[in-house]
Amino acid sequence: MPDAAKEFDRDHQYQMRFERLLRVAAASFNQKGFSGTSLKDVATQLNITDAALYYYVRSKEELVFQCYQRALDLGEAALREADTAHGRGLDKVRRYIELQLEALCGPNGPVAILSEIPSLKSNHRDLLLSRARAASRKVSGFIKTGIADKSITPCDPELACAAIMGALNWVPKWYHPGGHRSSLEQIRETFVGLLIGGLERKG
Amino acid sequence: MPDAAKEFDRDHQYQMRFERLLRVAAASFNQKGFSGTSLKDVATQLNITDAALYYYVRSKEELVFQCYQRALDLGEAALREADTAHGRGLDKVRRYIELQLEALCGPNGPVAILSEIPSLKSNHRDLLLSRARAASRKVSGFIKTGIADKSITPCDPELACAAIMGALNWVPKWYHPGGHRSSLEQIRETFVGLLIGGLERKG
Repeated sequence: MPDAAKEFDRDHQYQMRFERLLRVAAASFNQKGFSGTSLKDVATQLNITDAALYYYVRSKEELVFQCYQRALDLGEAALREADTAHGRGLDKVRRYIELQLEALCGPNGPVAILSEIPSLKSNHRDLLLSRARAASRKVSGFIKTGIADKSITPCDPELACAAIMGALNWVPKWYHPGGHRSSLEQIRETFVGLLIGGLERKG
Repeated sequence: MPDAAKEFDRDHQYQMRFERLLRVAAASFNQKGFSGTSLKDVATQLNITDAALYYYVRSKEELVFQCYQRALDLGEAALREADTAHGRGLDKVRRYIELQLEALCGPNGPVAILSEIPSLKSNHRDLLLSRARAASRKVSGFIKTGIADKSITPCDPELACAAIMGALNWVPKWYHPGGHRSSLEQIRETFVGLLIGGLERKG
């Protein structure tokens, strides 16, 4: 294998391992709480030594930060794809809800619930808050588009967005991969039925 | 003042001060995070000494537990009152959403977001989880009633409940009393419009 290919392969392997680490850590934060999770727990679950874990993250604060960055990466990808969906504002919101539920409950999950942003270091906190606010503005923007194109019933776009984001953000508190009685399909159907049914302009 | 009245008065004053303490602590947990809040911060905000604070709670774990108990007390009161509302299942869900938003954003607020239940002591955790599950069963029950009386469109009652509870549970993350551009009235109107509009059986 040429050197460049070897390096790519190493980078790719590092990335894959790091992703797995962040999924295991997210599951632990969601199920055992922020202060109920230690770096040692995560290393034990991954079956690696503490020293090997420190190769990826140097503190619990950094682990939380990286988990939250990953949650926002997936959310932003869902928003970008939803934005390219043809159709009206309502269709973009529907597509976002579907894609976000896939990110939370599909094979890329679990994703950490963003409950402890305020307790992180100020530079991490500011970055995450600014990304989370941009995501909310994007969803509010879809709702405004939908009110203008008459697919969405007139409402306060920021508050409607807060209700939708709350319903989605809370999913990792009750959905635990592998152990849940409902399928992604059932969750998607109910959430879209309720939230899109509530936004949709009637008549 | 007779002794019994004095004692009642002392109990009442203790209860009032304890309530204030729990509201101040809830605001801090919601805004600064669980690990970003110390007992010292709470004492400083209340303008009392650490020793005076220890008279009410002996550890941060106990403070969190008491804040969460209060959140569940208010939620259960909202559920009881909603259950006595005359009308169909949909009307009970609507009343619950209105009362819960009043609890979260009205003069009894703020209420701590229940994000760290899993990291508490096992007896506290079990008690809170069992109360939270009972509250969810109650809301699912209203939805089942509404499907049976044809006020609510057929759906998965547990998943619809999870979406509604998520939207409500997330409110303390973005609503900060005194500093929010939206009134309780506007929040209530938008949440009821969206969530009840989505549940309601059409035609």
